[in-house]
Amino acid sequence: MLAAAQAAHNHTLSRFRSGLAVTNKLTEGFDPVTEADREAETAVRAVIESHFPDHAIIGEEWDDKPSQSPYSWVIDPIDGTRAFISGVPVWGTLIGLMNNGHAFAGLMAQPFTGEMWIGIDGATDFIHAGQTVRAQTSSVTKLSQARASTTSPDLFDGLYYGSWNAIRDAVLQVRYGLDCYAYCLLASGHIDLVVEAGLKNVDIAPLVPIIEGAGGRVSTWDGGRAEKGGTCVAAATPQLHEEALDLLRRAMLD
Amino acid sequence: MLAAAQAAHNHTLSRFRSGLAVTNKLTEGFDPVTEADREAETAVRAVIESHFPDHAIIGEEWDDKPSQSPYSWVIDPIDGTRAFISGVPVWGTLIGLMNNGHAFAGLMAQPFTGEMWIGIDGATDFIHAGQTVRAQTSSVTKLSQARASTTSPDLFDGLYYGSWNAIRDAVLQVRYGLDCYAYCLLASGHIDLVVEAGLKNVDIAPLVPIIEGAGGRVSTWDGGRAEKGGTCVAAATPQLHEEALDLLRRAMLD
Repeated sequence: MLAAAQAAHNHTLSRFRSGLAVTNKLTEGFDPVTEADREAETAVRAVIESHFPDHAIIGEEWDDKPSQSPYSWVIDPIDGTRAFISGVPVWGTLIGLMNNGHAFAGLMAQPFTGEMWIGIDGATDFIHAGQTVRAQTSSVTKLSQARASTTSPDLFDGLYYGSWNAIRDAVLQVRYGLDCYAYCLLASGHIDLVVEAGLKNVDIAPLVPIIEGAGGRVSTWDGGRAEKGGTCVAAATPQLHEEALDLLRRAMLD
Repeated sequence: MLAAAQAAHNHTLSRFRSGLAVTNKLTEGFDPVTEADREAETAVRAVIESHFPDHAIIGEEWDDKPSQSPYSWVIDPIDGTRAFISGVPVWGTLIGLMNNGHAFAGLMAQPFTGEMWIGIDGATDFIHAGQTVRAQTSSVTKLSQARASTTSPDLFDGLYYGSWNAIRDAVLQVRYGLDCYAYCLLASGHIDLVVEAGLKNVDIAPLVPIIEGAGGRVSTWDGGRAEKGGTCVAAATPQLHEEALDLLRRAMLD
């Protein structure tokens, strides 16, 4: 996993803030894909395939590699491409490993700040400036005391708009614009709640072991496993997670 | 200015992500003030007063120091306190120097990432990892090509809400949550447009020389000098600035 992350950084960090060309993935809307994204995923896949040729691989840029193995790698070489092309160092390289769809190891690396979070076997390490410390979520149990985050309020259209407004009005404060970085700050106890919608599997599965290893709870809004993507609520404590799920359920019924 | 910034960092960086106590500045709403904020401003004021005892000082935490001198220092020891208490390294120490209300020198420092922007005498330097490079805004001249940012859409209530929506719908992409960091990324050519409202003098005056020294334009929404605070629009080029002002004027009339 570390070797794969390093392989990605050779293609991402050198292009960060370099004025690289941006191409639109969709004809409608704006979903930038950079050369960095594509080349980093290619490099990560090569590392994985050299070590585990029989494992499945699910990436953001290239077709899935199917397999009979119960193990599947989940890769988002640059989660937060909009942050990346705006020069904001809250994007990250995400690499996760699932067993029958259940993520049990995950890595997030931010090479500009030199930060890395690794969750595996129920524990999460935060690595920065040559030091490794065990990550631990905060002890916040109430929405009214929670520092919450979502990447953008614009994620929540139609049915979900009222849900986000309900969360926003219930919490202590809100931070926008963090992508995967928000979940890692939650693992380290600096943010207490992350609520999002419209996630892909690759956006969230690698973060699940990081959150759970630090003592947090993460699920879809209906309480299911978060790995599948879609909606997501991550919380510092089981109590906060439950209060957020309750509020989201009630907001959906309104 | 560098000595003052260093004095601030001794009080800010050590408390960043330390689980420090947060007190509410207002009985209503949430405007956190940390010990770091107060002690950093005290330290910055001491450096300024030792070198320029006759200059005026305007800070965020303590009373203004009036003076007959045309020179006044403008200090925001931690711009982006919400980012600070959420562990997000996009807050900054802002120190500016005005002559008769016109900011001609300004510094923004982010000690966790080790980045600093200094604008003085019509030029802006970006300092990072031991290297100093001249900052230059992008060449983007159209809203439809602009990477835009605002700290939070929740800044725009009532009269201003339609204005932000008009900008959001006209630009290429939007980033939220950056505070002073957005204006510095604009100076370095990574963001093209920043639109905000509800700014205090200390939030924006130190950034004016950084933006202007890199080739950008910054003003209030009515085209006046930005130093006074209130509304603000900063743009990479004069053409983009004019298009944004036009759109904001029209949205206000709707």
